[in-house]
Amino acid sequence: MVHIIHRVGIKAAVQEVYQALATTKGISNWWTKDTSGASEIGKTVVTRFHTLEGNEVGSMQFEIQGLEPDKKVHWKFLEGPQEWMGTEVIFELHQEEDYTIVLFRHINWAEEVEFKAHCSMKWAIFLLSLKQLVETGAGKPSPNDIKIDNWN
Amino acid sequence: MVHIIHRVGIKAAVQEVYQALATTKGISNWWTKDTSGASEIGKTVVTRFHTLEGNEVGSMQFEIQGLEPDKKVHWKFLEGPQEWMGTEVIFELHQEEDYTIVLFRHINWAEEVEFKAHCSMKWAIFLLSLKQLVETGAGKPSPNDIKIDNWN
Repeated sequence: MVHIIHRVGIKAAVQEVYQALATTKGISNWWTKDTSGASEIGKTVVTRFHTLEGNEVGSMQFEIQGLEPDKKVHWKFLEGPQEWMGTEVIFELHQEEDYTIVLFRHINWAEEVEFKAHCSMKWAIFLLSLKQLVETGAGKPSPNDIKIDNWN
Repeated sequence: MVHIIHRVGIKAAVQEVYQALATTKGISNWWTKDTSGASEIGKTVVTRFHTLEGNEVGSMQFEIQGLEPDKKVHWKFLEGPQEWMGTEVIFELHQEEDYTIVLFRHINWAEEVEFKAHCSMKWAIFLLSLKQLVETGAGKPSPNDIKIDNWN
């Protein structure tokens, strides 16, 4: 199994970062505007991605496996791209100086495929969006996310 | 051994992307302004990083292990952060539609340490800088790179 790991530091209180990760409203402000479902352990959240013209280009569904206030958010993917089946995303938070550090892990990919390389770049873009959201009040969720290649 | 892999697509001819990766002048326009050395197989290149005020905050040295025009650039790190010793960076290029696709790999990290997560985000930032450089003529090399956390 192989993993994507990223680290960002956000100049804000850990509570604010946690809210952006642990609620559907929060997620809709940095990952994709079309986020729905219930942010509770055992419940599922659906994220849909559209072009700027409104055409759906993909969707994912994950189960919330863990919510530890101000510390950790844990998702398991149930639907979406084939390579994502069974993968998990874990956000761990801690404070250092003026920053809330987010240690992001998207674990349990089967192999180092080119699509993983694409997703690694896109997660970096969305973590920047998360940082902007919490620091400035405005993120860049899909469909207004920065495009990085011909796969979006 | 664990790896960082990223994928970006650049709307430009493969020759232009290759020049930005295979020459010290090219590298100085997207990674760090203070890049010196000879861009030839077997020779070494030194990259130094500074604060905006001009204080050096780190440096690296790598040997050019491979240069395949318009296809591949291969570096091996000889000096720099301890975790980078013996790691290698490989850029592979190919054309898809209007894009030159860059498959980036920083391979042979010993383990999934937090510093690797930081470097994964920073490589994503510098690959965006590479994309901007080739598409618009202006990248964001250090010290004007986007800062992502308390480690820079």
